[in-house]
Amino acid sequence: MPPALSDTIVALSTPPGAGAIAVLRLSGPQAIQLTDELFAGKRLHEQPGHTLHYGTLRDEGRILDEVVVSLFRGPHSYTREDVVEISCHGSDYIVQQVLAALVRRGARLAEAGEFTKRAFLHGAFDLAQAEAVADLIAADSALSHQVAMQQMRGGFSRELKDLRARLVQFASLLELELDFGEEDVEFADRTGLTSLLQELQTVIRQLLRSFELGNVIKNGVTTVIAGKPNAGKSTLLNALLNEERAIVSAVPGTTRDFIEDEVSIEGIRFRFVDTAGLRETTDVVESIGVERTRQRVRQAALLLYLFDLTATTPAEVATELAELNPEGRIPTLAVGNKLDQIDTAEAAAFAQPDTLLISAATGQGLPELQQALLQQVRGSGLDRTGSATIVTNVRHARSLEAALEALDAVLLGLSVHHGTELLAADLRRALASLGEITGEISTDDLLTSIFTQFCIGK
Amino acid sequence: MPPALSDTIVALSTPPGAGAIAVLRLSGPQAIQLTDELFAGKRLHEQPGHTLHYGTLRDEGRILDEVVVSLFRGPHSYTREDVVEISCHGSDYIVQQVLAALVRRGARLAEAGEFTKRAFLHGAFDLAQAEAVADLIAADSALSHQVAMQQMRGGFSRELKDLRARLVQFASLLELELDFGEEDVEFADRTGLTSLLQELQTVIRQLLRSFELGNVIKNGVTTVIAGKPNAGKSTLLNALLNEERAIVSAVPGTTRDFIEDEVSIEGIRFRFVDTAGLRETTDVVESIGVERTRQRVRQAALLLYLFDLTATTPAEVATELAELNPEGRIPTLAVGNKLDQIDTAEAAAFAQPDTLLISAATGQGLPELQQALLQQVRGSGLDRTGSATIVTNVRHARSLEAALEALDAVLLGLSVHHGTELLAADLRRALASLGEITGEISTDDLLTSIFTQFCIGK
Repeated sequence: MPPALSDTIVALSTPPGAGAIAVLRLSGPQAIQLTDELFAGKRLHEQPGHTLHYGTLRDEGRILDEVVVSLFRGPHSYTREDVVEISCHGSDYIVQQVLAALVRRGARLAEAGEFTKRAFLHGAFDLAQAEAVADLIAADSALSHQVAMQQMRGGFSRELKDLRARLVQFASLLELELDFGEEDVEFADRTGLTSLLQELQTVIRQLLRSFELGNVIKNGVTTVIAGKPNAGKSTLLNALLNEERAIVSAVPGTTRDFIEDEVSIEGIRFRFVDTAGLRETTDVVESIGVERTRQRVRQAALLLYLFDLTATTPAEVATELAELNPEGRIPTLAVGNKLDQIDTAEAAAFAQPDTLLISAATGQGLPELQQALLQQVRGSGLDRTGSATIVTNVRHARSLEAALEALDAVLLGLSVHHGTELLAADLRRALASLGEITGEISTDDLLTSIFTQFCIGK
Repeated sequence: MPPALSDTIVALSTPPGAGAIAVLRLSGPQAIQLTDELFAGKRLHEQPGHTLHYGTLRDEGRILDEVVVSLFRGPHSYTREDVVEISCHGSDYIVQQVLAALVRRGARLAEAGEFTKRAFLHGAFDLAQAEAVADLIAADSALSHQVAMQQMRGGFSRELKDLRARLVQFASLLELELDFGEEDVEFADRTGLTSLLQELQTVIRQLLRSFELGNVIKNGVTTVIAGKPNAGKSTLLNALLNEERAIVSAVPGTTRDFIEDEVSIEGIRFRFVDTAGLRETTDVVESIGVERTRQRVRQAALLLYLFDLTATTPAEVATELAELNPEGRIPTLAVGNKLDQIDTAEAAAFAQPDTLLISAATGQGLPELQQALLQQVRGSGLDRTGSATIVTNVRHARSLEAALEALDAVLLGLSVHHGTELLAADLRRALASLGEITGEISTDDLLTSIFTQFCIGK
């Protein structure tokens, strides 16, 4: 079982930077002893697990800090090994000094994800659950949090294990036939196998379809919002944001780069991307602007075209939409704003499917707009998914695809009456692909590539 | 005692951002009960203090996270109140959700420094110690860390209390004289008082002198490094850095702004500031460059002029130094580089006080340069300090100055035989100034201005 777990690893587990406290985590056979060598307080190795101890850390006569030590004794810990968490003052300098003192005494700086990797290697959870830990940390909307939490708690793994268990049963019957070699017996009922395989393919296809939605949940829906100045974009975004304004805003958000604003609707995050192009249509740089806008639209999952009902004709809307999305490939919502400033007859002129009339200022039509946005996403995923489990991980999707392809080969083999040996080989491929997801089948390379995507200290 | 401590406060105590874990801290009478309302696991209010508990946080049927809860029962906690620390996955989203759930149940978001303020109000430590907590978090060199740690552990406070205790004794004798009013007795020996006051002033002056050094230790020595291209500045900085390269560099440093590089020598941080000016002396923008350089030199604590021994004459060095530091106000070191490329006779031409000859490439002369840099700092503080205690805090320095001034008034009063009443009033002023430092005398305004300089969650 890779790698040697005889060493003790250490890392800063909280984000770097100045803060009230920082937490260093040690895991491994020497975790308690190494801490004891620095800790002036109770002898930690004499203390029971799940206890807290206040004291000072000293190194070569110098006081490094006053700390609280959390003691976890394996297997009752995150990694199933002895784990010590040192809660010190949140200073980079202190963290560095304590890390250095521990490393000098024989601890090794942990690699990214190494604590979770150890938890996996000790059977604390399977690979899909371990991967969900990283998703959970990155989750920033209710749905992505919920999906990651469900996966971490083993929901997806259970579904996969059920699938795999049913296949394993048939596979072992096939292997049994192979043992009997020349005797040409058929323990495995071919008709039953065919219908089982088809059923499995249906479930796998559902899971694969959920990946599209899973990706949206995990990464948000990139929505290009196009519109002339004064169409009311800011008012609209503010109105949408008001609906979802967090009660607690003490925690700073993430960097926004070129994203104008993010709005979370029923847990799905819409990332609104600004289109500088349309802002400059009266300018000399018009052609550059429009090309840039087109480029953004091509990369978008959704196009929201916002126009001012008091200053636009239905024909202009059609022209501009045709220009922005000439092939009509991108799902589009045309949204007419300032409904409160025109009369019913004028509004009727804009009645079109996929055209919504709102007033961002009064809030009229906003719930319908939110539902329309959700519909665009769900129409492409959730309703067709038919599965409560949602796949969010590219690696899982690839493994599911490989399993699907192997099952195709088995079905083809059955239809042309391939020999048991070939069927068994394809079936083993399908089993291996499904096993890769949870780590029942794993390689060093696979583990390394998964866990290095984690942050240090997890 | 301000403010009402009947409420329970909560904050994120680790730096914001994605990380392996985040720690939320609650303090107050409801800390345990509020956590219990969310925590699915053992009943926390039935558990002893200094214990750790694994479980899930649930809010309105939703699982927020799997967490470890640290339980501290007052007075055995940082604030002396009941304290709960919730260690959850390091996701801003989760932190926000948990904070919101706790606030909905009645917790209040903590103000900056409010945990430490509560610790102070409950007598866990005095004001000077509380302030040292903030210094400790900001400390980024061995000396600043050591000074903050000594202060946090009460070193400075003890020295002040000794001073104050001796004054209080005399003050009470004076107050006693006042009680006897008309009888014109002198309990307090005037000669003894005079010599005590003079002794106290000596100690306070020593402490005030240490402030200059304390400021340097806390904030570093801004050293403008001037020199033509190819003088060897980068090689020099690298050579100095090599001496102090940290064993563990896993923790990212702080933002550097316009600072070229920082070198810590025997625990004192030198902040080397680049001078773009001299780089461009052959350019048309010469005059602007030189003016900019002069401006930086004026703001510097130290000027290090680096020149290439193989391409500079002693006269050029004198000219450029006169240009950079015309009034000679800034302590200056002239450093000739590339000593390995000239012979002894050539080197002799540069022999001047405050001129050092080095070879950054071979390391020759580097220890002497380090000592010369330290000498510049210590010459201005440490050697004259005569006190093991170092004052780093502006507020403390101001209070010491006020105490010194009040003691002057007492001494003057004694020399002109002022009445007891006037002497006692001035003495009370001196006592109040000293008391302000440790918080024996404090006001709401003072406390607020101190603790809002803390980070949230401390």
